[in-house]
Amino acid sequence: MELVKDDETLDDLQIKGIKVIQKKKAFRFGVDAVLLANYAKIKRRARVVDLCSGTGIIPFIIAGKTEAASITGVEIQGDLVNMADRTVKYNNFEDKINFIHGDLKDIKLIKAIAKADVVTVNPPYKLCNSGIVNKNDNNAISRHEICCNLEDVIAASRVILKDNGKLFMVHRPERIADVLCMMRKYKIEPKSIKMVHPSAGKAPNIMLIEGQRDGGRFLKWEEPLYVHNEDGSYTNEIEKIYGRM
Amino acid sequence: MELVKDDETLDDLQIKGIKVIQKKKAFRFGVDAVLLANYAKIKRRARVVDLCSGTGIIPFIIAGKTEAASITGVEIQGDLVNMADRTVKYNNFEDKINFIHGDLKDIKLIKAIAKADVVTVNPPYKLCNSGIVNKNDNNAISRHEICCNLEDVIAASRVILKDNGKLFMVHRPERIADVLCMMRKYKIEPKSIKMVHPSAGKAPNIMLIEGQRDGGRFLKWEEPLYVHNEDGSYTNEIEKIYGRM
Repeated sequence: MELVKDDETLDDLQIKGIKVIQKKKAFRFGVDAVLLANYAKIKRRARVVDLCSGTGIIPFIIAGKTEAASITGVEIQGDLVNMADRTVKYNNFEDKINFIHGDLKDIKLIKAIAKADVVTVNPPYKLCNSGIVNKNDNNAISRHEICCNLEDVIAASRVILKDNGKLFMVHRPERIADVLCMMRKYKIEPKSIKMVHPSAGKAPNIMLIEGQRDGGRFLKWEEPLYVHNEDGSYTNEIEKIYGRM
Repeated sequence: MELVKDDETLDDLQIKGIKVIQKKKAFRFGVDAVLLANYAKIKRRARVVDLCSGTGIIPFIIAGKTEAASITGVEIQGDLVNMADRTVKYNNFEDKINFIHGDLKDIKLIKAIAKADVVTVNPPYKLCNSGIVNKNDNNAISRHEICCNLEDVIAASRVILKDNGKLFMVHRPERIADVLCMMRKYKIEPKSIKMVHPSAGKAPNIMLIEGQRDGGRFLKWEEPLYVHNEDGSYTNEIEKIYGRM
């Protein structure tokens, strides 16, 4: 069986030679997933679950960059899971990474997943009532709250996490009130926030947030991350994350 | 009667010659109050109420910088209200600014205040259980949630604000989850956040937030404000706020 189909590409993650299968024309992994995978603090032998996993970019980066014991991706779109499974084979990650094709709103499915030290999630950002949405479109499902909303994601995280387990999420800064209040509703206490700005002096456009299941109330603001220097080049921090330094 | 006592100073606000009476040794107005007074968007003829008003620094800056019709400060500490009243006289603001000596938890008192277009508040930041606190100390009352907590402040704001009226608050970034969730509880929707950083690249240490009574859900992140340049000098934006440019 050919692992890579005609309408797909094999993209180099630039981490230990890992290559990821993606559709040429569909939603491809962006800076958000890369930043989240780098933001998540993952200890040796940790068990990680990645929700809204798509083509599995976050599990593959975590497998390349950390000593996690096992990483499970959950994704509702069958064609994306199919690609992720082939990426597992291509990179020989069968002992470390697996994908579940399922709906995170399915409480039986979620309860059946082995409890995790860490949950990562790059969920759909946009409210379903915002803008015109094609509900059969892969990209729309990845971007809009069609198949799951913020509450579904956080409720599932609560079930999957061990006591004191950590949730790492990337979202849009303008949804911060929704994110913080929903985390508190499910007793996942916000512990740390890192804002990503296009450059110094600009408003943030990506939010990285860490929560802890039943954690105590203490929130740390981390130093901001700037993507570009004043001259338009990437900052050292971004170059480092992308592994080009 | 002498307006300024021996243990007090007369501090120049550098706005239209306004001078404010403050104790030499007590809690003096800091950058937080100045930033909040400048952040608050106040229209011509607006009615403004300032909670936790202290010596009245925010009302005096607003009187100097805007065309507000009237500004009422509410403060629980009698000696601070006494100083604020004398500052009103000293600057001939009797027709514009008044202070109420009272407790914002007193619902009768709060209901008796004329409804406002804008509420401003620089509340005590610290939880009462954090650190050793002298409950009879002016500074402690201004800094710790001894006489009122965040919920008291937001509940009072809800009562005082007109429909669609705006709340402008300064607080610490690490309390953002408390602030956003409490605003939502009292249906004052967060509309805008501006973070203040000691300098570019540093984590924010002051949060300016705008809420709207029964406002729709849309939050805007404003451009960050940096206090210092890399060389330690004040940034142009801070120089402008302090009126020295």
